[in-house]
Amino acid sequence: MTGLPCDLLVHSAAEVLTMAGGPPGPLRGKDQGGVGLLRDGAVACGGGRILEVGPSDALRRRYAPRAEIDAAGRAVLPGLVDAHTHLVFAGSREGEWERRCLGATYAEIAAAGGGIRSSVRSFRAASTESLLEAARRRRRTALLHGTTTMEVKSGYGLSLAEEIRALEVIRALDDRGDLVPTFLGAHAVPPEYDGRTGEYARVVAEEMIPEVARRGLARFCDAFCEERYFDAAQSRAILGAAKARGMGLRLHADELSACGGAELAASLGCASADHLLEATPAGIAALAAAGTTAVLLPATSFFLGMRRWAPARAMIDAGVPVAVATDCNPGSSMTENLQQAIAMGCVGLGLTAAEALVGATRNAAWSLGLGTEVGALAAGMRADLVVLDAESHRMLPYHHGVNHAAVVVHHGEVVR
Amino acid sequence: MTGLPCDLLVHSAAEVLTMAGGPPGPLRGKDQGGVGLLRDGAVACGGGRILEVGPSDALRRRYAPRAEIDAAGRAVLPGLVDAHTHLVFAGSREGEWERRCLGATYAEIAAAGGGIRSSVRSFRAASTESLLEAARRRRRTALLHGTTTMEVKSGYGLSLAEEIRALEVIRALDDRGDLVPTFLGAHAVPPEYDGRTGEYARVVAEEMIPEVARRGLARFCDAFCEERYFDAAQSRAILGAAKARGMGLRLHADELSACGGAELAASLGCASADHLLEATPAGIAALAAAGTTAVLLPATSFFLGMRRWAPARAMIDAGVPVAVATDCNPGSSMTENLQQAIAMGCVGLGLTAAEALVGATRNAAWSLGLGTEVGALAAGMRADLVVLDAESHRMLPYHHGVNHAAVVVHHGEVVR
Repeated sequence: MTGLPCDLLVHSAAEVLTMAGGPPGPLRGKDQGGVGLLRDGAVACGGGRILEVGPSDALRRRYAPRAEIDAAGRAVLPGLVDAHTHLVFAGSREGEWERRCLGATYAEIAAAGGGIRSSVRSFRAASTESLLEAARRRRRTALLHGTTTMEVKSGYGLSLAEEIRALEVIRALDDRGDLVPTFLGAHAVPPEYDGRTGEYARVVAEEMIPEVARRGLARFCDAFCEERYFDAAQSRAILGAAKARGMGLRLHADELSACGGAELAASLGCASADHLLEATPAGIAALAAAGTTAVLLPATSFFLGMRRWAPARAMIDAGVPVAVATDCNPGSSMTENLQQAIAMGCVGLGLTAAEALVGATRNAAWSLGLGTEVGALAAGMRADLVVLDAESHRMLPYHHGVNHAAVVVHHGEVVR
Repeated sequence: MTGLPCDLLVHSAAEVLTMAGGPPGPLRGKDQGGVGLLRDGAVACGGGRILEVGPSDALRRRYAPRAEIDAAGRAVLPGLVDAHTHLVFAGSREGEWERRCLGATYAEIAAAGGGIRSSVRSFRAASTESLLEAARRRRRTALLHGTTTMEVKSGYGLSLAEEIRALEVIRALDDRGDLVPTFLGAHAVPPEYDGRTGEYARVVAEEMIPEVARRGLARFCDAFCEERYFDAAQSRAILGAAKARGMGLRLHADELSACGGAELAASLGCASADHLLEATPAGIAALAAAGTTAVLLPATSFFLGMRRWAPARAMIDAGVPVAVATDCNPGSSMTENLQQAIAMGCVGLGLTAAEALVGATRNAAWSLGLGTEVGALAAGMRADLVVLDAESHRMLPYHHGVNHAAVVVHHGEVVR
């Protein structure tokens, strides 16, 4: 009658959302709502991995756990995966945000010294220690809200040395392999290259990327493809240089204008195209054909005044895998809480709770190349999970503004 | 050198927002931004009351506290005051909300058995014990997010016995005098009065209000003045009956259509007119002239799809005192977190952080008849305060989606 040893058994859950149905890969189309729901379920964990997911009765008979969590009356989800953050930054921009709430335009804010450049000044002036400390605090906040895996971009340094400093902060922050570093040297044109965007783009492609690759500091490369930022040709050159050095690709695409970003991302084989508020039907079709994941950022739409939202339903209908992320950054989305982005994904993007949750777990994980590691609850995967304070996952976006993560398990350890 | 005894000294705060400037009453116009900011401040509390607010140095010399909170690097605010909630309800309506996110209209939802009537069915079927338990949990959630005082409406019972049951739950919930009960028998027409709104309105005015008043169960009376609910004449008769029995008045006004609700509230001398999304310039002028507080509910606009927002700036410009509340209820605003409503007040209503915070403290308190008791930090007032996890109050709405209440003091006791 002695059971198999295991470190932790989470049992009796009203719902376990395994996110594990169907063939490997992100979910798309009508499958995007497929949360793999198991009622009265349990998850057995050992050595930081999931040993088994199944009916509570069966697993309670099978295992002799060293620790147990009785999740009766609660839903259990995979740890959330945030596929788009700018977590490493200095300073805050609450004054600029308030002016924006009062009606100031982006151009007025930039003229007053705001915008990304304001964060670039703060970043360059900040000590590495203070950058690390602030990022660690934010990463902890995200974890306490259920986010166990995060993508983190550089992009406030905008010089070789400063971008490497940003990526080194990400590496220092990541003691367990939970952060995915993305090089975003092409986030904006730094002041010292004013009016010389092409020249800066060449520096990014020809000087920064080789050195970042040589040091192995970034798993992905990203660029801000947008009018007044980097045009399609510059973005293509930058991402081409990164691809040639084995980096995966992401793209800030069609955020402020329809500039062919989605099509470019598709043609380059990007893992993700992000933002996409102005994506056209042709761009959406291209993403679907390429299998590029649309990483949608509804908390950004909220933060910037709630006037424009990505055409999420058209994407799902077209078969584009959709992910939902926070875009955590000081200028356009000041929150670490992916639950909040999920709620905004429902009310703003018109996603169902199930679609938004798939977007913040399985689909986000696949877009980061981690689909076999995190984002679902299945044997062999990392033991990252969240026990909600609610019986149904549908309460998470509906009952918004509160932290539903009653328990967070990360690498098999209870961290909240 | 021995100081004055006191129970608690909160000291060294980067900011104390006293909300205590100017003559008594709510703040309006350009004064609404007047948070009464004191730098390096302290608050001494004793016997559940504030003894003194002043410079940290001076108060640290003057008092010998039994307990201290070092608020260095943090902002201190009055406990938040939520002037509009429907906290006592049974069941949840996440399915209806999801359909709404997918585009269903209110009429479609009502036809499918949703809407207020769905909550009326749940309420009537629920035991008093379960109603009390659920409301207590929500009230606790609000408190942990910094809300120390709340208005709570009945309105899901819609019969004399059931409305009294709701008000008795509110009374049972309120062990310290922190809840303000409002009778809202005229929240909707119950199914047994289908097609007989006038008859039900007479029951509310002539049977329910006298009994509620006799039992002393409600400090305010409210009505839902709206097309397909109660028209202006019915609302006037209901509130008139309540006024005659000494109850204060509030009104759900101009939420879905411009039906003269603001004008009616002003003419009746209502303490507040609430929602007001469709308030006209004439209605706003009437509120300003009457001194009626506009209780705005931006979390409701958010929850219902973010298409319509109250004209907050026009109200402030006209001199209407503006309050910000959650509208916590299962159909149109499922959150207890007033911080979230404050953030939505900035981004959706275009308020400054200071205006929104005045609206969620001082102005809310005055609208509830509690302006000399809560909503500001001054000697003699209730020792309700919040220590934020941030140096500036402006971080509260800007850095949204996380609970900024690091410490909550309620009646002089640390409850979080």
